[in-house]
Amino acid sequence: MRGLMQDFPLLVHRVLDHAARWHGGTEIISRSVEGPIHRTTYAQLNARARALASACERRLGLRLGSIIGTMAWNTWRHLEIWYGVMGLGAIVHTLNPRLFTDQLDYIINHAEDQWIFIDLSFVPLFEALQEKLPRVKGFIIMTDAAHMPAATTLRNVICYEDLIAEGDCGFVWPEFDENTACGMCYTSGTTGNPKGVLYSHRSNVLHGLMCALGDAMAISSRDRMMPVVPMFHANAWSIAFSGPLSGAAMVMPGPKLDGASIYELLDLGKVTITAAVPTVWLMLLQYLEQNPELRLPHLQRVVIGGSACPESIMKAFVETYGCDVIHAWGMTEMSPIGSLGTRSEQVARLPESEWWKIKLKQGRPPFMVDMKITDDDDNVLPHDGRTFGRLKVKGPAVAKSYFKGEGLNAFDADGWFDTGDVATIDQYGYMHITDRSKDVIKSGGEWISSIELENIAVGCSGVQEAAAIGLPHPKWDERPLLVIVRRPGAAVDRLAVLSHLQGRIAKWWMPDDVVFVDDIPHTATGKISKMELRARFSDYRFPAT
Amino acid sequence: MRGLMQDFPLLVHRVLDHAARWHGGTEIISRSVEGPIHRTTYAQLNARARALASACERRLGLRLGSIIGTMAWNTWRHLEIWYGVMGLGAIVHTLNPRLFTDQLDYIINHAEDQWIFIDLSFVPLFEALQEKLPRVKGFIIMTDAAHMPAATTLRNVICYEDLIAEGDCGFVWPEFDENTACGMCYTSGTTGNPKGVLYSHRSNVLHGLMCALGDAMAISSRDRMMPVVPMFHANAWSIAFSGPLSGAAMVMPGPKLDGASIYELLDLGKVTITAAVPTVWLMLLQYLEQNPELRLPHLQRVVIGGSACPESIMKAFVETYGCDVIHAWGMTEMSPIGSLGTRSEQVARLPESEWWKIKLKQGRPPFMVDMKITDDDDNVLPHDGRTFGRLKVKGPAVAKSYFKGEGLNAFDADGWFDTGDVATIDQYGYMHITDRSKDVIKSGGEWISSIELENIAVGCSGVQEAAAIGLPHPKWDERPLLVIVRRPGAAVDRLAVLSHLQGRIAKWWMPDDVVFVDDIPHTATGKISKMELRARFSDYRFPAT
Repeated sequence: MRGLMQDFPLLVHRVLDHAARWHGGTEIISRSVEGPIHRTTYAQLNARARALASACERRLGLRLGSIIGTMAWNTWRHLEIWYGVMGLGAIVHTLNPRLFTDQLDYIINHAEDQWIFIDLSFVPLFEALQEKLPRVKGFIIMTDAAHMPAATTLRNVICYEDLIAEGDCGFVWPEFDENTACGMCYTSGTTGNPKGVLYSHRSNVLHGLMCALGDAMAISSRDRMMPVVPMFHANAWSIAFSGPLSGAAMVMPGPKLDGASIYELLDLGKVTITAAVPTVWLMLLQYLEQNPELRLPHLQRVVIGGSACPESIMKAFVETYGCDVIHAWGMTEMSPIGSLGTRSEQVARLPESEWWKIKLKQGRPPFMVDMKITDDDDNVLPHDGRTFGRLKVKGPAVAKSYFKGEGLNAFDADGWFDTGDVATIDQYGYMHITDRSKDVIKSGGEWISSIELENIAVGCSGVQEAAAIGLPHPKWDERPLLVIVRRPGAAVDRLAVLSHLQGRIAKWWMPDDVVFVDDIPHTATGKISKMELRARFSDYRFPAT
Repeated sequence: MRGLMQDFPLLVHRVLDHAARWHGGTEIISRSVEGPIHRTTYAQLNARARALASACERRLGLRLGSIIGTMAWNTWRHLEIWYGVMGLGAIVHTLNPRLFTDQLDYIINHAEDQWIFIDLSFVPLFEALQEKLPRVKGFIIMTDAAHMPAATTLRNVICYEDLIAEGDCGFVWPEFDENTACGMCYTSGTTGNPKGVLYSHRSNVLHGLMCALGDAMAISSRDRMMPVVPMFHANAWSIAFSGPLSGAAMVMPGPKLDGASIYELLDLGKVTITAAVPTVWLMLLQYLEQNPELRLPHLQRVVIGGSACPESIMKAFVETYGCDVIHAWGMTEMSPIGSLGTRSEQVARLPESEWWKIKLKQGRPPFMVDMKITDDDDNVLPHDGRTFGRLKVKGPAVAKSYFKGEGLNAFDADGWFDTGDVATIDQYGYMHITDRSKDVIKSGGEWISSIELENIAVGCSGVQEAAAIGLPHPKWDERPLLVIVRRPGAAVDRLAVLSHLQGRIAKWWMPDDVVFVDDIPHTATGKISKMELRARFSDYRFPAT
């Protein structure tokens, strides 16, 4: 028997409708790409998103299922494009300007983007790239007529404000199935080509609700929220949806992510909650250290994710600036939030020092993320904080496949997505990533965490960077090799490193060798490229013991 | 194009799964019907709910779509029944013991309840009623063998704990469509027979998420939540879902709702958030006044709904006990929450006295409730805080029809549900109920609020109760008649009442007459029965002016 409740599809433009109707006067403050601070409201943003939608339909020919690209900073205009285009039933594919250009043209062609909306910053990039993008019909430059570049070689250029001016702000959103695609983001895979993740209206609305909950970001209409995390980075960690559905004011940092600029907006926007990767916070904290008279009186919560956050950053926010820090973990494939390190009542009873150990972990999954750790045979492993296994997840905002059916081996028959991470889960439910599963070192059937080895090794005096990789071993299958870059002028040697490790790790984790190199290879996103490193050491043989 | 996100139906037992897996040690504390305080955890509750489900399937023959009744207080057992039965895809129909017995047998027969789960308190009631319930196969008494009534004339009696003991706590929940019905609650209509509202898994999960949000009840795993509002009252205001999905500890008050008992549980359970109708809070506050040494140190938020809350109750909580009060409004047809009076940032800037005027209103709708006020021709009226119109709502947790297709005139072609209330909405989005639409007095095309007339009239010295009704008038269509019950011994007269009203209401709102009666008729739920009053005055004619 079916319930007798209304059919109310979860469509993302309903989020903006809610914000416009019930928080119509609430502000969206942006640093514009042109320079000045720009202020608008949800009511105005809603009207412009509708105008944009109608103009996109008429002039650009966008329909249900059309795909457009955006390469843009976080501004009110980028929000308008998300809501306006998604509201049509078309798809916004966010492009990360930090990708290598060959990756960019690959993903634009692979996604079959019809038009690309770009900020002024990216005009030169696309002038150079457009020849490789034969299917792209043209480019919309996200500025007004006064700021349009005097001469550009881009084909079919449209000025964004002219496009909006053609539109009808009374445009009525079409209704369609909530499983309709609305957003697309490619993962920068370390192996093979990038793969497209295709978000749906339903997944974005549910994920937005999930992220707004009290054990996630706890967002309300009393908040003023600044996503420093770019909208082109993993669906902006939900904030373009979780903020408006909560009626929070939005503060958009535009193109300037340096410490001084971020501080200026935190202060000017009276920001209460913000989110970014550790690097951004490091820059902010350095700026604040150089300006000791500055405080963060409005800021309550700092969400940190993208990579594991060093304790020093978290402690500085909590102890020096009185803000809480929420350590978050996720993946593009998870929309992206998978877990957050907020305090549960049980953990709240622990002493502060115990809580800090937990706070450094990746946190607990909110409702609508299912999570398990398993061994290689898919047996579920215990939540004891020590046993580590493959981290697998499930949920309405977790991918079930990649665009065009690629990468199917990441999804098992029961629908669990293998994150590629290796993790522990403790008795309180807090998950801790210990490695990537392809980097974990499998020695005699047991697993050694390469990341833990590296983290301990960089604590050794004279070590600048360390990478641990598993290399074939006749008896143990794999054994760890530790690769080290010395600090300039340092003379640290093999024995010094090994004796630093002694007592800090289990005996059988001890690397079979330590080698010194001038540089360690990195991926485009700044992570150590274990793949390249393993290739470099493919002929290496461990010394006989 | 469809998104490539996982199919993850929103099923209510996933809520309990989440609580059991990630908050397994979190407590559910109940005052048992047998007397003692009972403690369990989400992990245990989940195991018992699964055992119950398997036993219900095997012994009671429950299947997808089967309907059972419950007449029970708020305890861990009632939670187990909700989750266990709903998890099977069967439907829990909650029965309100405060209904008249002829309404009870009507709704049990109308719903076609197959079995009824009852607390010990209700054995005599069903012994008397069972002859009128020929389709009910039997009764499960929610207690253990030791407390089973020695002799009962109830047919096919099963002891609840025996039933659980037969079950398999490793039972695997079946998967089914999220639109499957799971709960049923009849509205106690003032006209005609009660009508059944049929909740779905999807509506309950979405409504639970909505109620947990920061502008609703702001629930987290740091909370300890006590629903004093019974689970048989309008879907327990979401708390059986919004609490567990947030990982909040639950404190269940069982059968004792008097001031002393409620205080005892607030204290013993270290309750941080609670919810009930004003009457309960009045009893608690009276108890606290009699025991001035008592405080409420843990309690942070008191949700008050069911009827408009007097300012004195709200002020006592805020000013004397330091708790915040959330004024909520809803209807059984809305699952039931429609709006909550939490503070938005814009309103937070107003002076405290202005905020109090707003706090007494019924609040703002959270995301997923759409709301509008219209005139009789369905034109949308402005949000100016003065214009009042018919209040209509829409949302995924709002009914689209009643059980067996009754009451269709409440739903319009665009899917809006006419609440039957008349309301204003102010510039900040706060809604204020000014009347029931069938009670509003229509004079010369304009509307007069009967409730506002009554509220002002009871402020007149010597007036105990007042009711305003519209009666036919040859020129104005309707004009107000004010019906008054004097306080014992008071001599207040027509002129005194009219002069009290003067200056407090618009001139054209002035009642055409004031009559004094010994009693005003009330409905089963304690509201003034305007219908009966109008019938009583059907032959009345206004004096010639």
